[in-house]
Amino acid sequence: MSKTLWIDGEGLLRTLDQTCLPFERREIVLDSEAVCQRAITTMQVRGAPLIGAVGAWGLAFALRDDPSDAALVAASGRLFAARPTAVNLRWALDRIVRRVEPLPVGQRALAARIEAQAICDEDVECNRRIGEHGAALLGALSERLAPGAVLNVLTHCNAGRIATLDHGTALAPIYLLNERGVPVHVWVDETRPRNQGAALTTWELAERGIAHTVVVDNAGGLLMRQGRVDAVIVGCDRVAANGDVANKIGTYLKALAARDCGLPFWVACPVSTIDPLCPDGDAIPIEERAGHEVSHVGGRLPDGTMGTVQIVPDGSAVANPGFDITPARLVTALITEQGVCEASAGGVAQVLTAGGGR
Amino acid sequence: MSKTLWIDGEGLLRTLDQTCLPFERREIVLDSEAVCQRAITTMQVRGAPLIGAVGAWGLAFALRDDPSDAALVAASGRLFAARPTAVNLRWALDRIVRRVEPLPVGQRALAARIEAQAICDEDVECNRRIGEHGAALLGALSERLAPGAVLNVLTHCNAGRIATLDHGTALAPIYLLNERGVPVHVWVDETRPRNQGAALTTWELAERGIAHTVVVDNAGGLLMRQGRVDAVIVGCDRVAANGDVANKIGTYLKALAARDCGLPFWVACPVSTIDPLCPDGDAIPIEERAGHEVSHVGGRLPDGTMGTVQIVPDGSAVANPGFDITPARLVTALITEQGVCEASAGGVAQVLTAGGGR
Repeated sequence: MSKTLWIDGEGLLRTLDQTCLPFERREIVLDSEAVCQRAITTMQVRGAPLIGAVGAWGLAFALRDDPSDAALVAASGRLFAARPTAVNLRWALDRIVRRVEPLPVGQRALAARIEAQAICDEDVECNRRIGEHGAALLGALSERLAPGAVLNVLTHCNAGRIATLDHGTALAPIYLLNERGVPVHVWVDETRPRNQGAALTTWELAERGIAHTVVVDNAGGLLMRQGRVDAVIVGCDRVAANGDVANKIGTYLKALAARDCGLPFWVACPVSTIDPLCPDGDAIPIEERAGHEVSHVGGRLPDGTMGTVQIVPDGSAVANPGFDITPARLVTALITEQGVCEASAGGVAQVLTAGGGR
Repeated sequence: MSKTLWIDGEGLLRTLDQTCLPFERREIVLDSEAVCQRAITTMQVRGAPLIGAVGAWGLAFALRDDPSDAALVAASGRLFAARPTAVNLRWALDRIVRRVEPLPVGQRALAARIEAQAICDEDVECNRRIGEHGAALLGALSERLAPGAVLNVLTHCNAGRIATLDHGTALAPIYLLNERGVPVHVWVDETRPRNQGAALTTWELAERGIAHTVVVDNAGGLLMRQGRVDAVIVGCDRVAANGDVANKIGTYLKALAARDCGLPFWVACPVSTIDPLCPDGDAIPIEERAGHEVSHVGGRLPDGTMGTVQIVPDGSAVANPGFDITPARLVTALITEQGVCEASAGGVAQVLTAGGGR
């Protein structure tokens, strides 16, 4: 079905506990609504497409146990509450509800399961196509380098395989180039406060044997100025109708540096990420997350166990906005499954028409 | 003498062990060349002006024990090796050597001690004047705000009191405004990889009761776009003859955001920081520091002891450039003890002439 969410030989749905990465590869079995809900809440699974898929499976499990109308409403409400800011979770749950509502209760569990599988399969295909379109851009860039030179791509956060059902969005073109034998090296922003770059992007790239180097989020500007970056590619959480992009906090700073250094700044996003009802970036609400993520850093202790260190004194206030807005003018292009388009009202309208939205 | 390096009631020279901040205020006694050298090497003291002063005192202690020519050469060599990239350390040691070399050996120890004290006193006065000039700029900005509105200043790293002998450079104007009753709030970049913002700037500001909020280095761009920052002020390690500025890694990204958002970006620096022999930023070597600073984060463990967590998997490469270059075109002005000047060849030449350099 996919590489991130799969059914084992005994018919059990499995995924990785991403809170254990990169230091331990621990599989978890998703076999009930409650387990799916907890996996989302505790961020054992994260990344918008993966959250949506796990939510859909959670609803299928709920319907297996109780296919009544009342249970359908209650379970989808509980699952949505697990991560209420995730647009994909709402979308995936609604899709299951729309599919099963008209059916007799006896057919609902199986239909929900089939629909959850379809959501997963479609995500894999969507990202595969993003990879193709992105690889064409990066490949053209690599052909302009000196013979044998390595293409250096900088990325922020984790928009990779394990944020999706497979391939990833921002990393999909890099995987494809690597498969095609193009020498590529990835600069991985550690991505404070949750360090998804340092923990997850590294783990993914290492698993595929792709050369990469972790840097603090402060370093990308210098690397670009020094000519050590050929392109920046990131994923995104939401694209406004004018092409403004909301993505992980810090993305805007990298877009500014890319512009200042004359480098392409590409945003990889499924068409479903585009919100035609949102006029521009200022209309996108910015999630303020727990201060604990800033004041404390988690990782592996010298004895091999996982732990946390406090880095901010108790008396100091902390702010933790989760996303920032990159104005469309700084985005070289959007890479969608429908093709590459300008980050502008016209460009966005064009891929929306082609894709029909979700 | 100063607030960062002081002589106690028993005549002992004392300073704070900055590796214990912000969680513990531990004083150390500096009473020999070896102790001074170790304090510099282990970063119990850091910040260019403070390192220079501790080096000067270390040489004075060495001459107390052995004032011979041979000892003078050997001790200054050993002390310089404690932090060879620190321009101020070289300068301070040379100043002691020049002062005592012509003297009879019997007079050297006292003369070195007096010279070390003078270095400290001059730094305090230099920073006091930087504070005055900077406070004029920030004060004018605050007068344009709505009545009663708080002035929001963002700073990167620690260019405060404890990086110097007193007042600090970037923080000097903020201390002065606060004393004058101007309501000011500081956005503190945590400043990965060593977190000097989260650990030291917070500690300093809290001690003076100045409102502040810690954010990850990724957040400043969003805060500026949202109108939550009125000005950015940073210190610097070296200014080239054309006004390009080398400062802690990540400074360039904040300068880009300030420019994009139409905000002033000020660099506070003693005239001694200007290197007239360095034509531009590209000629400033960028120190590559240990990867361990990126892959591991230090802080306070839940049991109250200090510890370290690993955040990057063992197999992943790490790069750790310590500084970046902010082009002069992005710097609104340099704030020196000789006054405020343009970050340009002309501006730099003007303050160099006024100050006579060190």
